[in-house]
Amino acid sequence: MTYPIDPARLWASIEHSATIGASENGGLDRVSLTDSDRQVRDWLKCQCSDAGCLVTIDDMGNMFARRGGLDAERLPIVIGSHLDSQPSGGRYDGVLGVLAALEVVRTLNAFDVQTRHPIEIVNWTNEEGTRFPPTMFGSAVFSGIRSKRDAYEVKDQDGHTFLHELERIGYRGPEACGDHPVAGYCEVHIEQGPILEANGSQIGVVTGIQGMRWYDIVIDGVAGHAGTTPMHHRHDAMVGAANIVERFRRLSVDYEPSAVLTTGSISVSPGSRNVIAARATITLDVRHPTRKILDDLERGFDDEIERIQSEFGLGIRLDRILASDPVEFDRRCVDAVRTAAQSKGLSHMDLMSGATHDAANIAPLAPTAMIFVPCVDGISHNEMESISQNDASAGAQVLLETVLQYDDILD
Amino acid sequence: MTYPIDPARLWASIEHSATIGASENGGLDRVSLTDSDRQVRDWLKCQCSDAGCLVTIDDMGNMFARRGGLDAERLPIVIGSHLDSQPSGGRYDGVLGVLAALEVVRTLNAFDVQTRHPIEIVNWTNEEGTRFPPTMFGSAVFSGIRSKRDAYEVKDQDGHTFLHELERIGYRGPEACGDHPVAGYCEVHIEQGPILEANGSQIGVVTGIQGMRWYDIVIDGVAGHAGTTPMHHRHDAMVGAANIVERFRRLSVDYEPSAVLTTGSISVSPGSRNVIAARATITLDVRHPTRKILDDLERGFDDEIERIQSEFGLGIRLDRILASDPVEFDRRCVDAVRTAAQSKGLSHMDLMSGATHDAANIAPLAPTAMIFVPCVDGISHNEMESISQNDASAGAQVLLETVLQYDDILD
Repeated sequence: MTYPIDPARLWASIEHSATIGASENGGLDRVSLTDSDRQVRDWLKCQCSDAGCLVTIDDMGNMFARRGGLDAERLPIVIGSHLDSQPSGGRYDGVLGVLAALEVVRTLNAFDVQTRHPIEIVNWTNEEGTRFPPTMFGSAVFSGIRSKRDAYEVKDQDGHTFLHELERIGYRGPEACGDHPVAGYCEVHIEQGPILEANGSQIGVVTGIQGMRWYDIVIDGVAGHAGTTPMHHRHDAMVGAANIVERFRRLSVDYEPSAVLTTGSISVSPGSRNVIAARATITLDVRHPTRKILDDLERGFDDEIERIQSEFGLGIRLDRILASDPVEFDRRCVDAVRTAAQSKGLSHMDLMSGATHDAANIAPLAPTAMIFVPCVDGISHNEMESISQNDASAGAQVLLETVLQYDDILD
Repeated sequence: MTYPIDPARLWASIEHSATIGASENGGLDRVSLTDSDRQVRDWLKCQCSDAGCLVTIDDMGNMFARRGGLDAERLPIVIGSHLDSQPSGGRYDGVLGVLAALEVVRTLNAFDVQTRHPIEIVNWTNEEGTRFPPTMFGSAVFSGIRSKRDAYEVKDQDGHTFLHELERIGYRGPEACGDHPVAGYCEVHIEQGPILEANGSQIGVVTGIQGMRWYDIVIDGVAGHAGTTPMHHRHDAMVGAANIVERFRRLSVDYEPSAVLTTGSISVSPGSRNVIAARATITLDVRHPTRKILDDLERGFDDEIERIQSEFGLGIRLDRILASDPVEFDRRCVDAVRTAAQSKGLSHMDLMSGATHDAANIAPLAPTAMIFVPCVDGISHNEMESISQNDASAGAQVLLETVLQYDDILD
């Protein structure tokens, strides 16, 4: 049997979402727990109710909209993503995942398809983490990675707590967060990278999520007069930073195409045009699908730092401030996504996710997979973010086929 | 004949100066045209009057204290420096030069020495330029490099103009700035570098001032997601900046020991830990005693930038925002300083000044030289700045001997 989703209906709902918290340049400014977040939640609730779903909210504001299954004993197959955005975000990011899930439910309704499992659309709270850091806030409490008490107390820049704002928008629900067992999880998301586009693939079969490590690096040198300190007398923290940026980059290239390494931010003091830098601080973001390579790279950093220290007479400290291990998705679920794409004749490829997603938090709880669709030029977290209607439809269709397979293979 | 200066008297005047605008950590916070600048000017005026000098002030606040000569027709030999400091400056910087000049006059008085030329102690206004940029403000107008009208309109961070503040402290004098011919100029200053100390020399015979060029460099890349953009897809402005810093450093080392090159400041946008840098801006300060080498280096920068652009897919713009040509001091004056040091049996060496000084502005107007004394660890523009009493005395003594030679050799 084939149950085609309705491309126009899906696209119309994406377009409607884009009117709530619309930013000047065609993107979204719909940061978590703001008035526009409340508005899009209210809208989603109506759409789900209209589609015959029962909407429940937990006390972290995570929203679940349940379409009943034939077997009342079975746990739900959960599909969705998040509706919040970056302050200058795009209109597709997590939105596509939630609205593709809504489209799946609407299509199943239209063809009167009965599943054994209940199916639930989820909208996770505060995935972006820009206002209340870190990212994937709602799913982290859901999975027990983060304590609810701590999460409640996180403050935004104006000093408002997460709890205060959650209550203010009326989305502290009655269900205890995490008290909600799941049979399986699948999330559609834009790729946020250029790989699918470069390979001409319409569907990314996501096999897992890269491991990520964040470091702070502090380089201590000695300030000095730019005009009077001979080059061989210098202990220039800026030169140390530059050598770290370039030599670490070269280290990561040994592991291409999989290792990615970014030094996105730097500060230098005193930061004066005619004073040798006394201190430089840089951030480092390193990702790779395997823990062993991340360990190897870390050892490489240590060796390189030792060389740079002695070469330039500097003191360098490398602090690992965050480590998230690679996530491997459930083999059966990944196969289900691949089979779904194949069965619809869609070009597809296996890939690891470079960015992290709510699916990383749910994977330890229940069999999980993800579906990527291409985004133009790999651009995301940006008002310029763009996808094709065709690819959005393909993603929703593959999600529907995947759900039907989950329904067969999962308990 | 020998006319020994009085080391205790010199040191006492330096110590007294250090009480005016004293900063918490033993340095000076005596920024130009502040109340403490007025206070130290008032004090200097009294000291000079007590030493029998006639004090005149020009309409840029430059102070001249004249000890008469035998020949009323002769132009003055001018000696001195500046009494203003950085906001967290040291107590010796320009202060030593002014108070060594005062000590020379006092010593000539004590031994009743008559010179053919008048001798004038000068205190140049706003040498530091931190409040009213750029540096060497008073001597620049004096020499005609800068227009007085423009100088008057420069504002500090609170919106006060230079003229307003000059009048407020009562130091807009009646003499038209620059209307003050000079027979010769000599300035004592701390070295602000480590060379004399490293060579165990008590006196630096300054042969000139390095040429200096300032550049702004803007590197344009493309922002991207740190987790999803493969290394070979990146146009990372931070990587471009790092390669410039390190490769330019290596270029400058080809000209060691004379070339010095500093990238003291950098800013990166968006400056986020998990976003590839779209733009980096760095400053570049390059100095060398010869113009040809500065030109060669500039060509080297252009070549290197071309390579970095194509290697990393970046757009890079190098703007030269300031160029000051090297200054070569008057041969006879430099010889006079060297002879003076030799005659007193003081260890000495020839060197170029890495920092620039009021003497650079006066050199085109009149035969000029400078005398350096060592400072501990080469540290200056810092409350930690320190010199030995012995070296201060040596500097003043050499200044006195130099003045007597100037008196012989200059018209």
